[in-house]
Amino acid sequence: MAPVTNARVLFNEIPTGYPEPGRATVYDESKTIDVDTVALDGGILVKTLYLSVDPFLREMMQEPDEESFSPAYIIGEPIYGYGVGVAVRSENGDVKPGDNVYGLFSFQSYNILPNLDEFRIIENKHNLPLSYYVGVAGMPGKTAFMAWKEYSRSKKGEVAFVSTGAGPVGSFVIQLAKLDGMKVIGSAGSDEKVEYMKSIGADVAFNYKTTNTLEVLKKEGPLDVFWDNVGGETFEAALETARKGARFIECGMITVYNDGGKPVKNIYNIVTKSLSVNGFIVTDLEPKYSKEFYNTVPQLVASGQLKYREHVYEGLESAGEALLAVQMGTNKAKAVIKVAKDV
Amino acid sequence: MAPVTNARVLFNEIPTGYPEPGRATVYDESKTIDVDTVALDGGILVKTLYLSVDPFLREMMQEPDEESFSPAYIIGEPIYGYGVGVAVRSENGDVKPGDNVYGLFSFQSYNILPNLDEFRIIENKHNLPLSYYVGVAGMPGKTAFMAWKEYSRSKKGEVAFVSTGAGPVGSFVIQLAKLDGMKVIGSAGSDEKVEYMKSIGADVAFNYKTTNTLEVLKKEGPLDVFWDNVGGETFEAALETARKGARFIECGMITVYNDGGKPVKNIYNIVTKSLSVNGFIVTDLEPKYSKEFYNTVPQLVASGQLKYREHVYEGLESAGEALLAVQMGTNKAKAVIKVAKDV
Repeated sequence: MAPVTNARVLFNEIPTGYPEPGRATVYDESKTIDVDTVALDGGILVKTLYLSVDPFLREMMQEPDEESFSPAYIIGEPIYGYGVGVAVRSENGDVKPGDNVYGLFSFQSYNILPNLDEFRIIENKHNLPLSYYVGVAGMPGKTAFMAWKEYSRSKKGEVAFVSTGAGPVGSFVIQLAKLDGMKVIGSAGSDEKVEYMKSIGADVAFNYKTTNTLEVLKKEGPLDVFWDNVGGETFEAALETARKGARFIECGMITVYNDGGKPVKNIYNIVTKSLSVNGFIVTDLEPKYSKEFYNTVPQLVASGQLKYREHVYEGLESAGEALLAVQMGTNKAKAVIKVAKDV
Repeated sequence: MAPVTNARVLFNEIPTGYPEPGRATVYDESKTIDVDTVALDGGILVKTLYLSVDPFLREMMQEPDEESFSPAYIIGEPIYGYGVGVAVRSENGDVKPGDNVYGLFSFQSYNILPNLDEFRIIENKHNLPLSYYVGVAGMPGKTAFMAWKEYSRSKKGEVAFVSTGAGPVGSFVIQLAKLDGMKVIGSAGSDEKVEYMKSIGADVAFNYKTTNTLEVLKKEGPLDVFWDNVGGETFEAALETARKGARFIECGMITVYNDGGKPVKNIYNIVTKSLSVNGFIVTDLEPKYSKEFYNTVPQLVASGQLKYREHVYEGLESAGEALLAVQMGTNKAKAVIKVAKDV
């Protein structure tokens, strides 16, 4: 077969605010790849099927020396994130063509993996759509499931507040908190998302753009668990309305990613209310919970007990649009780029 | 015996800043008590020997409806805090005259305790000065010992930063961290206190009034454990210089007590560095660690392995001066009021 285009999404410049398509990243078709002959050196050639666009990608769009979760993107090189692909050729005995592979991929049509060290072969016993393995059955699902198990210390009848409750992490957390018998308050940025949170079980759901968060929490709290994807004023309101002994699960702070964030009030509540405030990175929790996760979550999704929804962006050329939407919260559900058809 | 003066320290007005003697509190000699005949109704008459002046007392000098550790002081009534006394008369079978009693006392010469529910008879097997039971062998000591055990997850070779490291809690924490094989950085507000921190084992000790905290931590960190008695800019500097997975033990925030405190920068580090930030109230940890504490700490002090020092204020009339000194940090060591001689 003749060489084909190996389309890529390249990091172009460090954004000062939101990552504008064509500026922060550019779509590039200048490279080709000959899938039949490209040297693998013992590795695996994987065709990308789905790429995940998650809030944390914004964190790699910075100076290489700033500390963050993961190494910063390099100007002129492809960005990377979680994805699912299919093995096209393999010189690795553990992988055969047709196997589906999950892990961190460069945003390009084809990747050559030197080994499987950081990747996982998807079994897909329950025949989920493959894209779910970058969502509810992938990193965002693990984030919700594992950190909830590790930090929530949930008790029946307690109150949980979940920010960005219509997103892939928050919507999973809402359902976990309901399974544990809690009263659940969810916030999101549109009325449609409010309806979705109610449909998955939230007892109280509100649009933070039209309703004052602090007032809702004062009325519906005090809070025993706060799932934070937001930071800023939402974090301040949760501090103010936390019950003694409350647990804060610090998953992310999207208010900080694009403008650096403002200083936070009410921190002293950590002392007076004996709060436990825990940041985490899901990869640190995987050794403890990975087996339980893959044994339970795909089955819960397949059976319909765990609700999940996606917003699919078509083609790698839509990556810039999807990246911006996720930072602004204008995507309608878990943002996934469909790079190629399931094979 | 004829009635004697039952001197008291009364809460007089809610301070807007530091608690000025004669304004926030007043010393009062208007009451008398007849120790031979006063009705005990099955309780215990205790003569106060020592009262402890701790930073958290400032927190009860506020509006009754503001949330804090303990109920607010009542205008016109005595303030309260930890103390040691001696039983003068007892109608309780568990207490005999001459027994030493530890617990929360009203700041007055004599108290009648209805029962022993919230108090403890001091055994004093190691013949410590009784005043030590409101210090290293009392609430401040328990605070250091129990929260260190619960939250530090200390490892040999790691780095601990202890704020107010010359105080009764901080100086104990420095010694615990050294026992665990850590590198210890201590901060305090005078050169004399810096010398003291070095004398009890701190590897690095500095005067935060003349040396920039952030610069010291950048040079000597990154931090694995931060013992926070301060909040504010010290907390911000610790967030900035924490290592991934660091533990913050939020004991107090004296920067907040007298002026309400400012919003705090760098909070996002909780997320990116997977920090664990824990507030606590020592009484919640007592059931788990009380036995171990009383079995080890008095012996360590008696043998000289654990260093401790006091700043004794003479007479109940010095309470106002001591309260102010502890808030301003001008006391030289653990502030204790000697109310009456050991009996």
